[in-house]
Amino acid sequence: MEFELQITDPQSRARTGKITTDHGVIETPIFMPVGTVGSVKGVHFNDLRNDIEAQIILGNTYHLYLRPGLDIIEKAGGLHKFNGWDRPILTDSGGYQVFSLSANRKIKEDGAVFRSHIDGSKHLFTPENVVDTQRIIGADIMMAFDECAPGDAPHDYAKKSMELTHRWLQRGITQFDSTRAKYGYSQTFFPIVQGAGFKDLRTQSAEYIASFGREGNAIGGLSVGEPAEVMYEMTEVVTGILPKDKPRYLMGVGTPVNILESIALGVDMFDCVMPTRNGRNGMLFTSRGIMNMKNQKWKDDFSPVDPEGTSFVDHHYTKAYLRHLFVSKELLAAQIGSLHNLAFYLWLVKEARSHIQAGDFIPWKNQMVKQLSVRL
Amino acid sequence: MEFELQITDPQSRARTGKITTDHGVIETPIFMPVGTVGSVKGVHFNDLRNDIEAQIILGNTYHLYLRPGLDIIEKAGGLHKFNGWDRPILTDSGGYQVFSLSANRKIKEDGAVFRSHIDGSKHLFTPENVVDTQRIIGADIMMAFDECAPGDAPHDYAKKSMELTHRWLQRGITQFDSTRAKYGYSQTFFPIVQGAGFKDLRTQSAEYIASFGREGNAIGGLSVGEPAEVMYEMTEVVTGILPKDKPRYLMGVGTPVNILESIALGVDMFDCVMPTRNGRNGMLFTSRGIMNMKNQKWKDDFSPVDPEGTSFVDHHYTKAYLRHLFVSKELLAAQIGSLHNLAFYLWLVKEARSHIQAGDFIPWKNQMVKQLSVRL
Ligand SMILES: [Zn+2]
Ligand SMILES: [Zn+2]
Repeated sequence: MEFELQITDPQSRARTGKITTDHGVIETPIFMPVGTVGSVKGVHFNDLRNDIEAQIILGNTYHLYLRPGLDIIEKAGGLHKFNGWDRPILTDSGGYQVFSLSANRKIKEDGAVFRSHIDGSKHLFTPENVVDTQRIIGADIMMAFDECAPGDAPHDYAKKSMELTHRWLQRGITQFDSTRAKYGYSQTFFPIVQGAGFKDLRTQSAEYIASFGREGNAIGGLSVGEPAEVMYEMTEVVTGILPKDKPRYLMGVGTPVNILESIALGVDMFDCVMPTRNGRNGMLFTSRGIMNMKNQKWKDDFSPVDPEGTSFVDHHYTKAYLRHLFVSKELLAAQIGSLHNLAFYLWLVKEARSHIQAGDFIPWKNQMVKQLSVRL
Repeated sequence: MEFELQITDPQSRARTGKITTDHGVIETPIFMPVGTVGSVKGVHFNDLRNDIEAQIILGNTYHLYLRPGLDIIEKAGGLHKFNGWDRPILTDSGGYQVFSLSANRKIKEDGAVFRSHIDGSKHLFTPENVVDTQRIIGADIMMAFDECAPGDAPHDYAKKSMELTHRWLQRGITQFDSTRAKYGYSQTFFPIVQGAGFKDLRTQSAEYIASFGREGNAIGGLSVGEPAEVMYEMTEVVTGILPKDKPRYLMGVGTPVNILESIALGVDMFDCVMPTRNGRNGMLFTSRGIMNMKNQKWKDDFSPVDPEGTSFVDHHYTKAYLRHLFVSKELLAAQIGSLHNLAFYLWLVKEARSHIQAGDFIPWKNQMVKQLSVRL
């Protein structure tokens, strides 16, 4: 993987760049649609590629490990071959899902023991075996195994958790650096900054993570229930420390506003289930604000879903028809909502890139932040 | 509407033809995907048009009347404007759904009183008001209001039911002929042959229906639980009586085999929820037989879903990946299954047309009937 930093905004830390992987180029800042079990929910590959114009998607190691399982993915020749997505893929390490989805999880020095949320079977994730797992999945970008402390964790807990994550990181790096890619293209490995909502811990963690000089770095443990101001404050501390010439990935963030504010703080990569999850439930993000498509007010609004949208669904379907589909619980409603929201997120980061290049990112961002939160 | 009979198979009653409506041409024999509430479940309009190559879709009057309701459809300018489908639409009369879905239905001479399956509200469908309703929906082809007797109805019940349907037909025709299309394009009205599983009733009904000389005729009350042989026997009786120069629509039929056998008996139009319903549940029809995609046997079969299929889903996705999506209950599984099955049904009738034209329909049909029922 290579990262080329291109333009840095003089009024903020926002920057544009280019990540080159063996599966193609990613322009940053970028949003990565989440393909939990290898599939971006409700979206065909050709729409993901040509309509949404996704440049990279994310897969969840926890889910893929449980289903279809590593034997199937390995037999297929990796996730790209299995799901047919031939552009870059990033996988998380499974840590977050172990802590949020599985039952009876126990964290030990060695790793995390947990029971599958599907069949109750018992499993162990260690910093070493999640590297092996991601080698088998064949992600272009792999993530370190970390413990993600809750947003309201006390300092003592957050510190212990961060220190464990740091010890796990050292083990993960050793494993990564002593193993090879399985499928003939290269893989890279990002460490993750933790430290909950504490500046001193975030500072310490960012310095530790930066010291490894990996090809990219991630910020974890944010957008997990803390106020947005805390998230921005922590992000600002961390991006002030992480190397400028490496991409920075803010994990699991977030709303369109969160993304723009974090771009201003120097973040390059994002992922979030929000566009697909909210889209399935009828909540659509647009450049003019948020629409709840189940709302009575759309019932005879025969204007296009989003006249300024970039997706075909924005122009072919009307608000009244989409409302009808949501009220009638039609499958197509979830498909349209997901496609629209993902296309909007990809449009948003593309616009951000072009405004950073044009030198008017901050005024544009401030105007957008006002518009994006309006309830239409 | 115009119908041009083209080629008639010398070995059977199979024929090809061309229906011309103000929304475009339909080549027969044709299969019509079902768009219950205006949406073909799980399928985007552009895939319906370009990938499945649907020439006409069906809407359900009962569902559309309840939701979104006639006021919304009328405000939109009809169903074509509401759902964005600009090719022909056929609507059923609502009779079948009143009898199969609604609660507390009561059949009187005047019509059918029923309670909505959605909110329990009370409604009355009459032969006249279902004409008015279909005028508002704006279907290119409208259907008469009929009572559909159960597949195992005794002769006495079936006779009374048929006679009621005949009296209703007279009233529906009077209403249709004294009203006008609302949206500037023409609409036509098909009567429906009933008579359950009795030759004498089917004969009597077909003669009565034929006597009106409408632009097309339908055969109802089949594929409702009776053995396939009875269905074919009744269809054969009826197509022997209905005029040759008018299209014949066999309502709610059926499996790929049912469709081929009925084409051989002189049927031109079909609709059925089977391709979408079964597709959503993982049952795929192919020219080599039926696949249950949830089956363990596909788990490491990395060959394309259907190498001989015409849809993009057949070639991009593998059997193993599709199985994984079904097992993981992913939305995309239902989308792929629906698209594949509909594309297969449209391929099947297209092939039937071309073999009728080539003069080898019966040998091709007999070969296909063998293949289609194989369990893969
Ligand atoms: Zn702009
Ligand atoms: Zn052929």
